[in-house]
Amino acid sequence: MKGADMRAALFDVFGTVVDWRSGVARDVGKFLERHAIKGIEPEAFADAWRERYSPAMEEVRAARRAFVPLDRLHFENLLATLGGFGIASQDFPEAELRELNRAWHRLDPWPDAINGLTRMKAKMIIAPLSNGNVSLLLNMAKRAALPWDAILGAELVQAYKPDPEAYLRTASLLDLPPGEIVMVAAHNGDLAAARACGMRTAFVARPTEHGPDQTTDLRPEQEWDHVAADFESLARQWAA
Amino acid sequence: MKGADMRAALFDVFGTVVDWRSGVARDVGKFLERHAIKGIEPEAFADAWRERYSPAMEEVRAARRAFVPLDRLHFENLLATLGGFGIASQDFPEAELRELNRAWHRLDPWPDAINGLTRMKAKMIIAPLSNGNVSLLLNMAKRAALPWDAILGAELVQAYKPDPEAYLRTASLLDLPPGEIVMVAAHNGDLAAARACGMRTAFVARPTEHGPDQTTDLRPEQEWDHVAADFESLARQWAA
Repeated sequence: MKGADMRAALFDVFGTVVDWRSGVARDVGKFLERHAIKGIEPEAFADAWRERYSPAMEEVRAARRAFVPLDRLHFENLLATLGGFGIASQDFPEAELRELNRAWHRLDPWPDAINGLTRMKAKMIIAPLSNGNVSLLLNMAKRAALPWDAILGAELVQAYKPDPEAYLRTASLLDLPPGEIVMVAAHNGDLAAARACGMRTAFVARPTEHGPDQTTDLRPEQEWDHVAADFESLARQWAA
Repeated sequence: MKGADMRAALFDVFGTVVDWRSGVARDVGKFLERHAIKGIEPEAFADAWRERYSPAMEEVRAARRAFVPLDRLHFENLLATLGGFGIASQDFPEAELRELNRAWHRLDPWPDAINGLTRMKAKMIIAPLSNGNVSLLLNMAKRAALPWDAILGAELVQAYKPDPEAYLRTASLLDLPPGEIVMVAAHNGDLAAARACGMRTAFVARPTEHGPDQTTDLRPEQEWDHVAADFESLARQWAA
């Protein structure tokens, strides 16, 4: 399948476009050092913070809670994660914790991301379809020079992936049939949900998203429409 | 006032960034010629079509009608405008009328717009805050190479300007206080509404938006925070 008949490519962001683990660990490390907190690996803190991500969204997906933007879930999860490491969040000014929470706005792209996106942008609409909120994705894009055509995602459609509404309402905002949209992700589950909504799928493995010992999403688990080693390679496939 | 403390610039689009009258007249002219319809000036048709714009949105603003995207209002207004010129819309395939309706997606920017926007983009977030729907603004931006950081507007916040919610909910999506946002428009009314919501204001006159005999919005009607002859001049002010 060629790229010629695809009108838009939508991208998962955390893990697929940016390296959340290193970025969060970097800011957590500074926080721990500033407060002379010893004995906690910043990467372990980042993993523990991220572990609360999916359960927090599940409350919204299961309609046990009204939609709230990811910044808010991240902040609640930060307080819980601090507690889990025996750190009393009340000991810190709220403004400092809010700033630490914005570590998720300051993530660096994988080395191939910007070149690949820039090349794809010449052929089609490119936009995030992320669970991150608009300001998070926009601040991230400005800092890292991600060349998005638009900022799309969960906040605009008030639904968290893999809820089908997250994909279908985004297609509706683009006024495109799902079959003219390709979802790009490093996560098989995200692609399975996009495919169930009629979107095309592209898998790009990010084997160190979760660190050197990652065991999940190392390879495609279905016959995705496109599989590439990185974004530059995917862009070359679509240009062919 | 300098640009240094402004985090985002939001732009009215129809009239301020793009020349809707010439663009719509161009596509209407092709339609009339294709069907050998004589005696109608394409510009007069564009004006008549546009005249129905504000009353149609007013139905939504006054809550007499649920929010619908502008593409839909434009299409209803196209049928009514055809009727107003004695043209029976039923005589044409719906697909052709839908395509004509997308004239609003194919508008050209004023000559200074792209250079000015590109310069502003290096300093702050730039995005449309338009009554146009997302796909309209995105298709327009791709065609004309408008360098937006994000596509914002009425559809995302389900409110048409000058309803205060259109400005306030957009500020909320950006997670910025209105005072760190500047609204840029060629229309005094748009700026008055933005100012009432706490936003800063920048007026750029577009004296031929409505053609050579324009009588409205030729000059600033309040002491706006910034006044400039065009986008390049505004960008220079903000860089100073």
